[in-house]
Amino acid sequence: MANPQNVQGTLCAPLDLSHHFSEVTKNRLNSQVKGLYKYLSMPGLHNLAGGLPHESYFPYDTLEATAARPERFKLLDPSKSNSNKPAEWHLRVPKIKETTDLLKKIDLETALQYGTAQGYPPLYTFIREFTRDHLHPNVPYIDGPEVIMSCGSTDGLGKAIEALTNPWDEKKDWIQDKEGVLFEEFAYMNAVQTVKPRGLNVVTVAVDSDGMKAAGPGGLEDVLSNWDFKKGRRPHLMYTVTSVFPPGFQVWLDEEVLMLVYNSLGQNPTGSTTPIERRKELYSLCQAYDIIIIEDEPYWNLQFPSLRETAAGYRGEAVRRDSYIKNYNSQGRSSGYQFLDSLCPSFLSVDVDGRVVRLDTFSKTIAPGCRLGWITAQPAIIERITRITETSTQQPSGFVQAMIAQLLLEQQGSTVAQTPDKDTSGWSMDGWVGWLEGLRDAYQRRVHDMCTILEEGKTVAIDGVPGLDSWSVISKAPMYDFDWPVAGMFIWIKIRYDTHPLLSIYGAEKVCTALWFFLLKKPFQCIVAPGMMFAPTETMRGRAFQYMRLCFAPMAEDAVSDISHNFVAGCRAFWQLENFDDIPGLDETIMPERMGVQMC
Amino acid sequence: MANPQNVQGTLCAPLDLSHHFSEVTKNRLNSQVKGLYKYLSMPGLHNLAGGLPHESYFPYDTLEATAARPERFKLLDPSKSNSNKPAEWHLRVPKIKETTDLLKKIDLETALQYGTAQGYPPLYTFIREFTRDHLHPNVPYIDGPEVIMSCGSTDGLGKAIEALTNPWDEKKDWIQDKEGVLFEEFAYMNAVQTVKPRGLNVVTVAVDSDGMKAAGPGGLEDVLSNWDFKKGRRPHLMYTVTSVFPPGFQVWLDEEVLMLVYNSLGQNPTGSTTPIERRKELYSLCQAYDIIIIEDEPYWNLQFPSLRETAAGYRGEAVRRDSYIKNYNSQGRSSGYQFLDSLCPSFLSVDVDGRVVRLDTFSKTIAPGCRLGWITAQPAIIERITRITETSTQQPSGFVQAMIAQLLLEQQGSTVAQTPDKDTSGWSMDGWVGWLEGLRDAYQRRVHDMCTILEEGKTVAIDGVPGLDSWSVISKAPMYDFDWPVAGMFIWIKIRYDTHPLLSIYGAEKVCTALWFFLLKKPFQCIVAPGMMFAPTETMRGRAFQYMRLCFAPMAEDAVSDISHNFVAGCRAFWQLENFDDIPGLDETIMPERMGVQMC
Repeated sequence: MANPQNVQGTLCAPLDLSHHFSEVTKNRLNSQVKGLYKYLSMPGLHNLAGGLPHESYFPYDTLEATAARPERFKLLDPSKSNSNKPAEWHLRVPKIKETTDLLKKIDLETALQYGTAQGYPPLYTFIREFTRDHLHPNVPYIDGPEVIMSCGSTDGLGKAIEALTNPWDEKKDWIQDKEGVLFEEFAYMNAVQTVKPRGLNVVTVAVDSDGMKAAGPGGLEDVLSNWDFKKGRRPHLMYTVTSVFPPGFQVWLDEEVLMLVYNSLGQNPTGSTTPIERRKELYSLCQAYDIIIIEDEPYWNLQFPSLRETAAGYRGEAVRRDSYIKNYNSQGRSSGYQFLDSLCPSFLSVDVDGRVVRLDTFSKTIAPGCRLGWITAQPAIIERITRITETSTQQPSGFVQAMIAQLLLEQQGSTVAQTPDKDTSGWSMDGWVGWLEGLRDAYQRRVHDMCTILEEGKTVAIDGVPGLDSWSVISKAPMYDFDWPVAGMFIWIKIRYDTHPLLSIYGAEKVCTALWFFLLKKPFQCIVAPGMMFAPTETMRGRAFQYMRLCFAPMAEDAVSDISHNFVAGCRAFWQLENFDDIPGLDETIMPERMGVQMC
Repeated sequence: MANPQNVQGTLCAPLDLSHHFSEVTKNRLNSQVKGLYKYLSMPGLHNLAGGLPHESYFPYDTLEATAARPERFKLLDPSKSNSNKPAEWHLRVPKIKETTDLLKKIDLETALQYGTAQGYPPLYTFIREFTRDHLHPNVPYIDGPEVIMSCGSTDGLGKAIEALTNPWDEKKDWIQDKEGVLFEEFAYMNAVQTVKPRGLNVVTVAVDSDGMKAAGPGGLEDVLSNWDFKKGRRPHLMYTVTSVFPPGFQVWLDEEVLMLVYNSLGQNPTGSTTPIERRKELYSLCQAYDIIIIEDEPYWNLQFPSLRETAAGYRGEAVRRDSYIKNYNSQGRSSGYQFLDSLCPSFLSVDVDGRVVRLDTFSKTIAPGCRLGWITAQPAIIERITRITETSTQQPSGFVQAMIAQLLLEQQGSTVAQTPDKDTSGWSMDGWVGWLEGLRDAYQRRVHDMCTILEEGKTVAIDGVPGLDSWSVISKAPMYDFDWPVAGMFIWIKIRYDTHPLLSIYGAEKVCTALWFFLLKKPFQCIVAPGMMFAPTETMRGRAFQYMRLCFAPMAEDAVSDISHNFVAGCRAFWQLENFDDIPGLDETIMPERMGVQMC
């Protein structure tokens, strides 16, 4: 498909960035010509060559599922449901589908056999089209990016870090060889744990409400231009997630600690994911300093622009008009879908050099247990990651690749013949994008419901706080502060322990620990993630204890309101306590410091 | 379960081998206390903590399959089929299975959610029991080994190499830091490609018909005791596969080339996988030199002891009685299954120190596309591999873990209620072992059929070979030599180009290339793996061209004989050719040098 920017003659080939490959990655053999493959497709040939078990020895004759139609979210939404279409259908992957078109051959003979590292051909082709034509239709280099399926974004990140960094050992390596990775001050713990054991510098860049700062103190330019080479090489890699932590809260990273602090300067509570203008500034700096960008966006499709006005209305603030952004620019073409056009554009949209490695996942859009995602980057980088894949995961499981291919791809032919009375067609691109939009809408309803209840319930009537004169003169005090999230799955709460009547008796940390534990108990029975979980060392307990992270994803949709009310009621009851003696077990309570990396 | 060896009081704890961990692996954080997990299981608790999408947002409501009963192979074998049991059943993983027993809770709510790195609890528990009580019931250290699920053995190997080796870079590292891995002279290409890019020494040990040699020139002791430290550290790791290449053929490895040669000294054509006595010798050396053993056995269940006599009968040789081995010793306990007892014992069975890392896979027993296997080793090694898993694959896909759990585990309860008229119970341990035995029997029939036809057809009547006096006086000449395999999926053929009438005109390499290409053409249409595929460099073409590898797995079982006859007929016709002019395209033919790593 012709890229419209070609007309203007401005596209160049991506840069050769192979000097960034790790030594191990450089050492990997090039892929040999596919040898026997060209012969194996000859009709009538008897294969005595490959070590491939015959499909009759696979104990599965079909794989099947009952699956949602892409309209399910609309069908479940009372305000939109006026259809009598069924909300689900039965899909079936046969043992053998008779077709010579490998892109339509979704069957066990192929899916459960050895396959190619880039992915199962029907699914790989669908995802490649989705990525190049719809999700990122304006990648500004010749022929656009390539993709490879991953076993989820954690696997994708692991492979990218393996491809692009050399481990460093202080006992034997020179300091000037120590590489570094740039992170936002708030960061995903698991990403840090992928990088740190390799002995690399974890380097933080300040953020504001638009994400990583380009200019100003602590911003990217500051960090790079004032780099202290006594710490090692200037970082050549940046890891960025723009939608996990809402702005206003930050996890400060340094060599030894992860520190969660509240940015008390005050930020736009209706901020956005990093807008295109900021991305251009950051990208220019990455060009100037030759940095590769790893963009990890598991929550990409969960952006809630329509909540801006609701939130602003509560807070009496103006909505920033410039934060409404579109996934195309004046030279670009539309994604073909209004929903995708409404999403924040990726760094890929400004990636003239081919220095962006983008990680996507089905974890939040299909299910975490898929362990399936894809990596998007310039072809030469994808080629090296393919070599890494061949000696590690080889390919994602054929079970999940076949089932998702059968779900997403428009079906025809022999599988339908088995059940002529049923509509067995797959979602197709329209259905897939419709599912993503329906999912976003469903999460947006959750955010709206939970935030409204938190907003309307955030103050408590108090008679006066002993020893706190500033509060004793008012009758309502806030129990917590929070920002309305504009993306993702989480609401961050700062506990206003300073308004609690018992602060002077128990102290701030004990008040916060007691609240966390009190909420666990009947009748509230709410478990939230304590800030401590994001602050695993002693040195930062002094600040992290006052935060809580609430996730609006794990419960049934119709339980969101009740659970939110429970949370507020629990806080209110806690503010009424005359002492903590009636919280059995509190004295033995230790705030959990980590939930298990996969759940964060 | 008590280990019977405990009675003798001889078991010790496994050794602390943490000095072998790579620096990156040492740097990984210990697993934190499972934090919130203990609270999350409280009944009635509202979870606001984990970033877990609710299962109602997963588009799958069930996963289902039509699957074989474990008796299918017997039902398909005409000599054994006297049952009217159906050969298949319908399995169904429901969205939610109401049970508090996590080991029996096989449903989408759990399988498609984030999980634990060690594996899906029901499947992990089944495999752990299979490994500890049945496959390796006599691991001689206290409390026995631990397991973790892998994404197939290539993934398992990648993680083991990551855990146990430091990459080495000649541009910056000292030679004394260069680590090395011991391989058999014949080796799996993909394993070599996992190790070589890390800059490690690939060190070969001579083999004989019992596998890697302990004593004698080129044997393990020779290699280790005469280690030249100018090459780097003495190897601290051994990689061994005992059943991929049959003895008699060897791929010679050195730093730069993989070379396939025929061991013309003659070996026992009915050799075995490495017997227990040899394993003990090798293990003692590994103890003396502090070496960790990675045992990779994808073909473990495909051992064909009953073919020994058939093969020996054809060759007029005595069967080696001592090569009948059992998976237990005088102190040990039975696996509980005659079939498993008949298999060669693993290095685990002599692993008093806990220095064996064993890789198993479902690729050959269920299907390659599973990308599912498991790693078995002492708990401290499994713990480090678990940490690596958390920042790479996280866990195998829930799709394959749930479907295989549903297949293997004895089912009861709510899933049955849906289809009360059908037998929906899973295989259970008995069925699983029965399936493995049935599969072995099926492959054994294939080997028997193909080898018999190759054996009976290996000579050709010739009138006399011009220029080859030694053959001109006899009327029958061999077209190829081969050994009957005793394990695995392959038969190796050495082409006797020296008996071909046109040798003097075309030369050896052209004769072999022409045969390979001639077999491809109608009416024979057989594609075999050329030896060249195992010899990717120019320097070894001079020897590798004369070999072919035939796989008896990829075709339907009832096609084995016809295809084998085709192969023999093709060879015979080729020996009748008066010139090669009638082989169109031959002049442009280049022997494929590699099939794609995943197919080898």
